Amino acid sequence: SLPLGIIAGPCQMESRDHALEMAAALKEISEKVGIGLVFKTSFDKANRTSISGKRGVGLKDAMPVFAEIRERYGLPVLTDVHEAGQCAPVAEVVDILQIPAFLCRQTDLLIAAARTGAVVNVKKGQFLAPWDMANVLTKVTESGNPNVLLTERGASFGYNTLVTDMRGLPIMAATGAPVIFDATHSVQQPGGKGTASGGQREFVPVLARAAVAIGIAGVFIETHDDPDNAPSDGPNMVPLGEMEALLTLLKRFDEVAKANPVALD
Amino acid sequence: SLPLGIIAGPCQMESRDHALEMAAALKEISEKVGIGLVFKTSFDKANRTSISGKRGVGLKDAMPVFAEIRERYGLPVLTDVHEAGQCAPVAEVVDILQIPAFLCRQTDLLIAAARTGAVVNVKKGQFLAPWDMANVLTKVTESGNPNVLLTERGASFGYNTLVTDMRGLPIMAATGAPVIFDATHSVQQPGGKGTASGGQREFVPVLARAAVAIGIAGVFIETHDDPDNAPSDGPNMVPLGEMEALLTLLKRFDEVAKANPVALD
Amino acid sequence: SLPLGIIAGPCQMESRDHALEMAAALKEISEKVGIGLVFKTSFDKANRTSISGKRGVGLKDAMPVFAEIRERYGLPVLTDVHEAGQCAPVAEVVDILQIPAFLCRQTDLLIAAARTGAVVNVKKGQFLAPWDMANVLTKVTESGNPNVLLTERGASFGYNTLVTDMRGLPIMAATGAPVIFDATHSVQQPGGKGTASGGQREFVPVLARAAVAIGIAGVFIETHDDPDNAPSDGPNMVPLGEMEALLTLLKRFDEVAKANPVALD
Amino acid sequence: SLPLGIIAGPCQMESRDHALEMAAALKEISEKVGIGLVFKTSFDKANRTSISGKRGVGLKDAMPVFAEIRERYGLPVLTDVHEAGQCAPVAEVVDILQIPAFLCRQTDLLIAAARTGAVVNVKKGQFLAPWDMANVLTKVTESGNPNVLLTERGASFGYNTLVTDMRGLPIMAATGAPVIFDATHSVQQPGGKGTASGGQREFVPVLARAAVAIGIAGVFIETHDDPDNAPSDGPNMVPLGEMEALLTLLKRFDEVAKANPVALD
Repeated sequence: SLPLGIIAGPCQMESRDHALEMAAALKEISEKVGIGLVFKTSFDKANRTSISGKRGVGLKDAMPVFAEIRERYGLPVLTDVHEAGQCAPVAEVVDILQIPAFLCRQTDLLIAAARTGAVVNVKKGQFLAPWDMANVLTKVTESGNPNVLLTERGASFGYNTLVTDMRGLPIMAATGAPVIFDATHSVQQPGGKGTASGGQREFVPVLARAAVAIGIAGVFIETHDDPDNAPSDGPNMVPLGEMEALLTLLKRFDEVAKANPVALD
Repeated sequence: SLPLGIIAGPCQMESRDHALEMAAALKEISEKVGIGLVFKTSFDKANRTSISGKRGVGLKDAMPVFAEIRERYGLPVLTDVHEAGQCAPVAEVVDILQIPAFLCRQTDLLIAAARTGAVVNVKKGQFLAPWDMANVLTKVTESGNPNVLLTERGASFGYNTLVTDMRGLPIMAATGAPVIFDATHSVQQPGGKGTASGGQREFVPVLARAAVAIGIAGVFIETHDDPDNAPSDGPNMVPLGEMEALLTLLKRFDEVAKANPVALD
Repeated sequence: SLPLGIIAGPCQMESRDHALEMAAALKEISEKVGIGLVFKTSFDKANRTSISGKRGVGLKDAMPVFAEIRERYGLPVLTDVHEAGQCAPVAEVVDILQIPAFLCRQTDLLIAAARTGAVVNVKKGQFLAPWDMANVLTKVTESGNPNVLLTERGASFGYNTLVTDMRGLPIMAATGAPVIFDATHSVQQPGGKGTASGGQREFVPVLARAAVAIGIAGVFIETHDDPDNAPSDGPNMVPLGEMEALLTLLKRFDEVAKANPVALD
Repeated sequence: SLPLGIIAGPCQMESRDHALEMAAALKEISEKVGIGLVFKTSFDKANRTSISGKRGVGLKDAMPVFAEIRERYGLPVLTDVHEAGQCAPVAEVVDILQIPAFLCRQTDLLIAAARTGAVVNVKKGQFLAPWDMANVLTKVTESGNPNVLLTERGASFGYNTLVTDMRGLPIMAATGAPVIFDATHSVQQPGGKGTASGGQREFVPVLARAAVAIGIAGVFIETHDDPDNAPSDGPNMVPLGEMEALLTLLKRFDEVAKANPVALD
């Protein structure tokens, strides 16, 4: 297997300047650590807990920024799409189209994403079993696109809580698709703050090292230079200043893991 | 409180003729039992487990049928919408726009549905707590539409299973919105048959009588003249021939329940 | 089926006088309502959340009080046992030996209870499926005692919360054993107050009416003349003053339910 | 922190000869790998799914074998106790008394175990949150025994399934007690085979490497020379022949983990 990669960036695109700064900082960190980086940020947070939650700069303003990040830093870019019609235009400026967990069974969205030819990263719904993702994967591959990533981001566990079932990582890997572990949203507490989701940032490194020890293609970690003042997912974003140490450690676990792949049978 | 109403019909619109027959049969049953009826059917099953699952006749073909059912039988009609752009045209031919459970946090869809002025029935996501629906409700009412129904349809409980937490009914009712209990999808076993969802039809009456005894505005029951050959949700649809007896019984429980309303404090 | 019965009393025996007063008051209420009563109280709370939680008067002091309640009020008495050696002596003074949920798989305790010849009421563990209780039932019946009750009291649902899966009632009834619904412990929030369990007393009537509407042999409700000052389970005990109205209402639901039994196939 | 230790052995003591053979084999493996070993086996399986499941040789026959293993191989021995009266005699021949998960809140059992002065290993109930174990720990320490281990073995997740919440490991470690991860019972499927529990042996190494990467005091793995013919827990025991490679790998992950301890704040 290939060495661990990282998908990282701020939860939402707050402004062109902030996005560029974050991309530059992450590029520097990833090169220092020696780990492949995909830059992630969202142009629209389409399913905020509350109607008054900030949603990001929007598709129109985000598109030139995605293009600029790709060109300026040579970084592959990932962003999420919410309706079928967004897939084609967004695919012109990013490398990976991400299907949000709530939408992972929306057939039209999956097909539209597949048809762009871009890599499609599907997040596993909080309401699905790991083995259910085989059907989701087929919706994309049967639409002619073999480049699919599957992302674990926690399963519903009672109310306002998620749990990560680590068995899901090798189960999803058995489909043949590279598996990503989203350490940021796995520690989310959906709706846990009344009109916003809570989160447990302190468990991001805990779950990330566990997942990496099992052997995964990549880890997804949202990060911010000032998470406590970020407009969304602040409680579960890792401060930018901690990323280098975290990635360095994950790389060490990955080396042991990749030299000793899990065999389910 | 008003007496119990019923939202019923076949899971998906299979053809004009079948939809009309089902509407006629249900109208006759509801009049005999003396219970208010809303006719439900879907023009598109947009999130089937498998890409090869049948999806229904589609929006274009369904629209004149919805109009015909309304006019011919004088029945209010409910159908579900999946993308914001569908809301306005669909609202011209139906009375209630339903937001599917997976999509209950998609802000744009909620706002677009709200703006049509139609009644909006939001199904509670399998990944949400009952109290989380207050935020969902606000997304619709702050968009200027006070006519919202909230529907319980089960919560994720381990893999490929749902559980109905009956406490959720009065908790959601405390928002002021009428609460519907979807007895059909609460007994679904998501993804339980590999490439399709399973279901436990025999528990529809069990959960329905429990919910009605607590005191709810309405019950949602999908029904079919030949459920074992229906293209979707067959395992959890009630045979049409059993509906009269079931509704008659639910009405008796409702009379006791409405005369003795639950008070949470 | 027989009409609904009620198992009621204070969570723990606090003193002879309090137990007698509660038994007298409940006897009067049950006769007024016309519902069969079993008096329940515990001589030892053997699994309190905290080591400093009050545990009750103990076996030695409780035994004459159980005998006195049986004789004086002609009431059948139920109490719970925790180790095999307690079964024989306790069975001399009570009619029903109850196996606590945490202990429902302890083979020696089940056999010892069975061998006394007393009725055995086994509470379903929070960690078991309804169908798992068939094996538990067999442990008692194969020990020569056919008089077994099975009690639903909620299933683990995330942390510090239980959920009642109403499907479990007819599933357990299919074993042939009478099924009891414990409305008190089903609304417990285990460990929810740090060093004590919390509870949601307001949902006792909600869940009780739902369960009774499905059709059960009996309902289990802990009650107290001053629940807020009770030494255990205060947050989920129903005030004694509310019992008459509650039982009257449950009886009405039971009449409809028993006239229309659930058939699972 | 100290290097990872291992608690290993066959689920139940089948005979003196088998126990001695397993102890000898595990001692050899642990010395080769360089990892501290505690030998584990049960004299009584007191909560089998079915009354006809084999329960082990019993306390009387097991006691001299425990003593022989300690003396002959110089290995510390762990076994589980089920009633308070067993603690004192068993503590004479073993080093660690283990409290089964179902019994982890039985105050008398915890106190009796504590008073022996032996190390007490309490398994977290499938129905408890990690933070609930602080109260359990206090029951032992306030009884005068500071030598307590806390073991994670999965939480109830729907029916007949457990899930391991890896966040629980550092949460329990924050109490100050060494934390053990029981990889064997975490992959159990309680009651999953009708009259016996199922299991997913293939996930033992998966979960073990994840837990070890987080940083734990020890890992608990049941093993057998012929698991498919073992009288209990066969489906989740690791074949003896795979133990050396597994422990060697876990040791490598432990070295990275212990050099980089998790900090929750």
